[in-house]
Amino acid sequence: MCEDRAARAFVPGHVTGFFSVHRTDDPATTGSRGAGLTLERGVTVEVCPADSTTIRLDGDPVDVAAVEGVLDGAGVTARVAATTDLPLGSGFGVSGAMALGTALAANEVFGWRRSANALVRRAHEAEVAAGTGLGDVVAQARGGAPIRLEPGAPPAGALDAIPQTATVEYLDIGELSTADVLAERHERITEAGVGALDRLRETPTLDRFVDLSREFAEDVGLRTGTVDEVISAVEEAGGSAAMAMLGRTVFALGSDLTAAGYDPKRTAIHPGGATLLADSTPASRDQMD
Amino acid sequence: MCEDRAARAFVPGHVTGFFSVHRTDDPATTGSRGAGLTLERGVTVEVCPADSTTIRLDGDPVDVAAVEGVLDGAGVTARVAATTDLPLGSGFGVSGAMALGTALAANEVFGWRRSANALVRRAHEAEVAAGTGLGDVVAQARGGAPIRLEPGAPPAGALDAIPQTATVEYLDIGELSTADVLAERHERITEAGVGALDRLRETPTLDRFVDLSREFAEDVGLRTGTVDEVISAVEEAGGSAAMAMLGRTVFALGSDLTAAGYDPKRTAIHPGGATLLADSTPASRDQMD
Repeated sequence: MCEDRAARAFVPGHVTGFFSVHRTDDPATTGSRGAGLTLERGVTVEVCPADSTTIRLDGDPVDVAAVEGVLDGAGVTARVAATTDLPLGSGFGVSGAMALGTALAANEVFGWRRSANALVRRAHEAEVAAGTGLGDVVAQARGGAPIRLEPGAPPAGALDAIPQTATVEYLDIGELSTADVLAERHERITEAGVGALDRLRETPTLDRFVDLSREFAEDVGLRTGTVDEVISAVEEAGGSAAMAMLGRTVFALGSDLTAAGYDPKRTAIHPGGATLLADSTPASRDQMD
Repeated sequence: MCEDRAARAFVPGHVTGFFSVHRTDDPATTGSRGAGLTLERGVTVEVCPADSTTIRLDGDPVDVAAVEGVLDGAGVTARVAATTDLPLGSGFGVSGAMALGTALAANEVFGWRRSANALVRRAHEAEVAAGTGLGDVVAQARGGAPIRLEPGAPPAGALDAIPQTATVEYLDIGELSTADVLAERHERITEAGVGALDRLRETPTLDRFVDLSREFAEDVGLRTGTVDEVISAVEEAGGSAAMAMLGRTVFALGSDLTAAGYDPKRTAIHPGGATLLADSTPASRDQMD
């Protein structure tokens, strides 16, 4: 698709289990605290310079304001082509992944010569400004099972992680609007999210993370309908499952969804964070902005 | 080798290109600033509980004080078996990798339930106390091409990175004592290292990193003998090479050593940081310390 210069980046998917919202008047320090899992299933983003900006996901034109924000903020236009085996709008951080992947690939193809932290900050700011996410970008930049201790992008944000790994199963039941949920339940989310974070920091294990995430979904009133049925069925089968924030998605570790009789998708915790891919063609010196 | 419980971790190798030394009266905040490359070649560490501590590297008994420090600090004894295709003592951060891998695997097998940051801090402190490294552990925990902005372990240390990737070639010419070099050249290293870091932060690219690293080796008087010959030959062939701090090792990006007529080892920048491996057997609840 790209004629001469192109760069590609891979960004892991990310499910948040619980969170609290922290807003300031600066997108870089606005964000969420909480915890989640980055996933081996993720988003590959290819960027090449173009006369106008076009954004495609799996071949279809899409509007992703965070991607536009990354490019507009630098005054460039590009053809952005993303591919993923994750669903959009179901709580896997696909929009954040597209923004971060665009920043990493555009840095290479336009010769921006920015540091990793500067690119994460740019993608985070664009995602916050677009209203599509508060913590996915910084988590996806780190990889593993990130704990978001302090909100925002570097140098403001602070991360830790659960130092374990596991296979992850999930059932994608449907979309949920992040903006609607945040507007309706802001106080309950913040109270429940801060409490869950304190408890995870006392015992930072994956088992505890899933339990705290399930309790969070219940505390904020989102454990309803089919999501509730699936979580209950997993518990009856002796397992533990929780809900991805924010989507109608149930996730579990190991084979807990399979053991409850479902036919879930399977992936695993991704060990690393977002990364430029080796087949990228950098800008030559005279093409640098 | 392990009877019932065992855990394994992988830690990438790490070559530092330039650095400055920053000592406090606390090992957690003592460390180095600088930049380097983490490598796909690394160290795999297996830990299982045992009546006394034994440490092996590729089957041979070794004394690695940083590994002993990680275990002693927690009051446990273990059989530690590490394997690597990197040389020890040549500037690849093998001792730091063994300490960090031991911390990650021991956390799982002894049920310590510590966070990732706490384990990095423990390994960093043990490495600093042993006098075998100042910045490898925090770099190896991050992966990629880490820039160490502020010295020490989390929450004190601060990292950024060069957001690019490349293949890496290296020639291992022999060992160099970290302690001796630091004792003899402390002031020159700090002055040259701080200057190189400022310049890399202005232009955080891999090409600039190699150039600044080569200049650093020359500024501190370590570009001598065979190392100097190899670096000069690469320059004459139109490439760029530098010296691993601290070992008699020359490294270059792409195929710059091959192009100069050498027969180097090949690896690549590792995209992620140290990680527990999926085949680990966690402690059951009643085995947790």
